[in-house]
Amino acid sequence: MAIATKIQTFIESASWIRKMFEEGERLRKIHGAENVYDFTLGNPNVEPPARLNEELRLLAQQPLPGMHRYMSNAGYEETRAAVAEVLAEASGEPVGAGHVVMTCGASGALNVTLKTILNPGEEVIILTPHFVEYKFYIDNHGGVPREVWTDRETFQPDLAAIEAVINEKTRAIILNSPNNPTGVIYPAATLQQLGELLGRKERELGRQIYVISDEPYARLAYDGKLVPNIFRHVDNAVIVTSHSKDLALPGERIGYLAANPRMTHAELFLEGAVFCNRTLGFVNAPALLQRLVAKVQRESVDIGAYQAKRDLLFTNLTALGFRMVKPDGAFYLFPQSPLADDVAFVRLAQQHHLLLVPGAGFGAPGYFRIAYCVATETIARSLPAWRELAKELGIGG
Amino acid sequence: MAIATKIQTFIESASWIRKMFEEGERLRKIHGAENVYDFTLGNPNVEPPARLNEELRLLAQQPLPGMHRYMSNAGYEETRAAVAEVLAEASGEPVGAGHVVMTCGASGALNVTLKTILNPGEEVIILTPHFVEYKFYIDNHGGVPREVWTDRETFQPDLAAIEAVINEKTRAIILNSPNNPTGVIYPAATLQQLGELLGRKERELGRQIYVISDEPYARLAYDGKLVPNIFRHVDNAVIVTSHSKDLALPGERIGYLAANPRMTHAELFLEGAVFCNRTLGFVNAPALLQRLVAKVQRESVDIGAYQAKRDLLFTNLTALGFRMVKPDGAFYLFPQSPLADDVAFVRLAQQHHLLLVPGAGFGAPGYFRIAYCVATETIARSLPAWRELAKELGIGG
Repeated sequence: MAIATKIQTFIESASWIRKMFEEGERLRKIHGAENVYDFTLGNPNVEPPARLNEELRLLAQQPLPGMHRYMSNAGYEETRAAVAEVLAEASGEPVGAGHVVMTCGASGALNVTLKTILNPGEEVIILTPHFVEYKFYIDNHGGVPREVWTDRETFQPDLAAIEAVINEKTRAIILNSPNNPTGVIYPAATLQQLGELLGRKERELGRQIYVISDEPYARLAYDGKLVPNIFRHVDNAVIVTSHSKDLALPGERIGYLAANPRMTHAELFLEGAVFCNRTLGFVNAPALLQRLVAKVQRESVDIGAYQAKRDLLFTNLTALGFRMVKPDGAFYLFPQSPLADDVAFVRLAQQHHLLLVPGAGFGAPGYFRIAYCVATETIARSLPAWRELAKELGIGG
Repeated sequence: MAIATKIQTFIESASWIRKMFEEGERLRKIHGAENVYDFTLGNPNVEPPARLNEELRLLAQQPLPGMHRYMSNAGYEETRAAVAEVLAEASGEPVGAGHVVMTCGASGALNVTLKTILNPGEEVIILTPHFVEYKFYIDNHGGVPREVWTDRETFQPDLAAIEAVINEKTRAIILNSPNNPTGVIYPAATLQQLGELLGRKERELGRQIYVISDEPYARLAYDGKLVPNIFRHVDNAVIVTSHSKDLALPGERIGYLAANPRMTHAELFLEGAVFCNRTLGFVNAPALLQRLVAKVQRESVDIGAYQAKRDLLFTNLTALGFRMVKPDGAFYLFPQSPLADDVAFVRLAQQHHLLLVPGAGFGAPGYFRIAYCVATETIARSLPAWRELAKELGIGG
């Protein structure tokens, strides 16, 4: 073996996804990029808020001495304080700079959090359909993922099913609301019930069970809905998030983790997280971006534009006979696959130049994901292709 | 246990280092920062080359559409090509963009490389004195560090000692030249002999053994010396490096890994590295910095200024009776501790307001490290304190 056996296996099992991407590239070359409708990637086509560019311009014109040097592994005090101020308002808890660690995105924050808390073989509950990377992140740190299906009609957490898998090895549950890939938001009442369930299990089993709330889409909620703050409902909660979506900065790798001030042994957890941020090789979140995001904690991209895209697609696809939950946030639709085999369906859609991700990629065969963070014009121009696809499948009227 | 047992243990065992830092803070508060001479951190006090700031200003004034979005996990083609061009010249090998993966610094590159190649329990040789983080990085990915002392007079690799520890579990050896903490450069002849030794062992054991060449100080070489390129001497070599030192950007987390085109199964290794860059949570190196460093691959900070600092300290400390190897690169001196107990020596130096790191932190008790990436004025003003310290110890004449 030239490389680690496990990595080689992971690469091989991912090859069908790569083949799909290659098929997309092939189609683009033949038909032109403008005639291929790529709904596969959560890579927002929007630009960051103007204020962020303005702050970058100011900083570039008058660079601060030492602004590219190492700082504390937790990040700049100023940035952490700016994050904490907004979190304190949202949660009603006394979140301070000391509760926040700046990270290389939410993926960095998740890996740091899991490394901090997981002993070998301990279990982490993930809710299916789930973000494709969670299993790799848990495995990185010697943990074992335990998949629990959400309600298959609503994609809301199934508390009885969660309770059934909790045991003396359970260390954490990862929540993701608004959800990738389903777009649903978990209501406050559900989080409250989950918090009570976990508190009961913690006492019963004599061990701390964390809620890791992965919230990169927290600002992307529609129809005036608000995403409830997890700190209000769960004591042992960690928020992990990034500015990839709300500030449209996915390539810059800037995010943070924050511990609920009410967490048992919060100080120890945070000390561990700073240590793991350092030793996993992140060292610290990128310095320049830390300075920029400190200035725009209350800004976000145009949420209304995303809502309009959701409405355009949801209305048209529903009318064509596709069945799906109407999502309240994020920028994904997760319809049922009209064919039992979602991979076969996605291949068929490719013939209509529609690029989609099969539900199997999210542990949820029988569905498919549409990422609608694309130009509205792309959505509009794709509609005839969707119509042809529906006709070929014989769905709708 | 609120957090992982191993992490809690690591934090506790690191507490004496933290106590030393706290002592430094205490001294600064009492005597003023200008009267405390902090030689503990490899955090360069210089600014990046002017050209880099200029490129940042241009980009900030005219932002490119999509410049903050995700790109390939390996990084921008343009940046990888710029890196490859310089590496191809230095190595004489046909290094192309496809051999390069942009990373969050050298620490990111090291973790990605180790994750890619290590099966559980496989061994990685590190040369003592060694960078303090190597053991954590190896442990992160289930590997076992094997420490091999360099020659205690010259800090050059001891090839016989290396050969003696190679066995059927050996997967890699990490080299760091110019070295942190000793500042020595490994000559071409040594690398050539090491390459031959490893080739022989690979055939004997029937397994691939990697050289991971950690080179963040490769541009920081003095007296006109050049750091030999590892690709010329070792086929199965990976370069891991950052622009933290040569471009003075440590807080920005920008670096890369590069595989020797002559590596056995280079393509598989690189595919694995891209996968691990993604799934370890780095995802990609920060977008903005990738664009900037692509423009300044042939620039570096003022090497002459570092050389002058080395000379100032080396000449004065040697005259005072401190014994050390004269380093050819990096920005560290690693003298012998005048007291057998290097921690006791460092505590004594603190009383003279000199902040140093004991050799024990590098697996090398009996020595101490001076990081001279500080203002020349700080070095000059510290000299009376060094004199007093030498007098108290009764060393010199």
